[in-house]
Amino acid sequence: MTVRAIKVYQDLMGANEEWAAKTRALLRQRSLLMLNLIGSPGSGKTTLLEKSVDYLRSRHPFAVLEGDVETTNDAERLHALDVPVSQLLSGGSCHLEAKLVHHALVELPLDDVDVVFVENVGNMVCPAEFDIGEMAKVAVLSVTEGEDKPLKYPLLFREAKAAVLSKQDLLPHLNFDVAACRRNIREVNGNIPVFDVAATTGEGIEAWGEWVAEQVEQTRNRER
Amino acid sequence: MTVRAIKVYQDLMGANEEWAAKTRALLRQRSLLMLNLIGSPGSGKTTLLEKSVDYLRSRHPFAVLEGDVETTNDAERLHALDVPVSQLLSGGSCHLEAKLVHHALVELPLDDVDVVFVENVGNMVCPAEFDIGEMAKVAVLSVTEGEDKPLKYPLLFREAKAAVLSKQDLLPHLNFDVAACRRNIREVNGNIPVFDVAATTGEGIEAWGEWVAEQVEQTRNRER
Repeated sequence: MTVRAIKVYQDLMGANEEWAAKTRALLRQRSLLMLNLIGSPGSGKTTLLEKSVDYLRSRHPFAVLEGDVETTNDAERLHALDVPVSQLLSGGSCHLEAKLVHHALVELPLDDVDVVFVENVGNMVCPAEFDIGEMAKVAVLSVTEGEDKPLKYPLLFREAKAAVLSKQDLLPHLNFDVAACRRNIREVNGNIPVFDVAATTGEGIEAWGEWVAEQVEQTRNRER
Repeated sequence: MTVRAIKVYQDLMGANEEWAAKTRALLRQRSLLMLNLIGSPGSGKTTLLEKSVDYLRSRHPFAVLEGDVETTNDAERLHALDVPVSQLLSGGSCHLEAKLVHHALVELPLDDVDVVFVENVGNMVCPAEFDIGEMAKVAVLSVTEGEDKPLKYPLLFREAKAAVLSKQDLLPHLNFDVAACRRNIREVNGNIPVFDVAATTGEGIEAWGEWVAEQVEQTRNRER
């Protein structure tokens, strides 16, 4: 019993890195961009993707892997917009593992897309610790969550290549200091762009979409 | 190296249950109520506690153990209101463990309080899996997070003895269906009270405070 438990623990850890490496190799070979969106439950990750459809579809069509503990709600929202999407159920786990992502990824219509967004399980802590083979992590923080979150959950912001400050249409009704939040992000990670987004009004979607397009270009220009 | 890793893993798991049992025995012996508040980052857990001070102080004074990955921000907020409080830093971990909680608990001025609130690390998944010896878990969900969260993160709502739907002052600015959210909570757990709270206006704090007071009474009336 003890021996078996040990083996499983080690296999899982090793396997995650192996599957992440397989995914990374596949993405490189296809010059395909994969972004790993991480944020709290209800931080606006799915809405950001919904609102990115109009801007990106004609330029860089994308597919989505929707991670959740349970339900297919989020996949249905993107399917309704004709985005190729699969739902990944973590089965109680607090993060997505690389093996599940890889298996779902290879079954997407990869010839038809330039970008794959992975929406991780809603959680600001654990998903930041697990490599799923993505090109970059993107932190999504809603302005309803408070400006101190980058300091309280620094790993995500340290790992991220960009951050989205979402739900800014609610700013008039909140005590949220955008400048202080940006300072807190810079304190943890001085180099990442921070996008001000109000998905319900469309504000900021273009700047975010342009950044995604730049990442597509960088992916294509990278040595294979 | 391998052997050492195995030992640590098993010790930690066993130790968590042991420390939780020690905490539970201490609470019973003192007829002290301990509630474990669990919710996403920025769901309003600290504000709920701040706003509970006026109602509860004269009836059932409380102390707080503030859990966070990093910073002492939340403890400072409660300290400013003269609430006995300690900050528990999880050191990167996504949840509080029973040992840390126990050590902090015994150093609180327990003779002076009827209730200890533990504010867990902001995360809707992992903290629900770890027993810290509490009498009950309380789920805190902000209406900015979306009404489907009880279905997407069912373990927390299944484990909880009560739920707080916070930030309801923002409802006029959101597409959030309170009735649907209540139905979703009932689908996961038919028996728990759900408190509508707008901490900024004080709405719902009294009903929540009354429930806490009932739990204090039940704790006192329980066989030791």
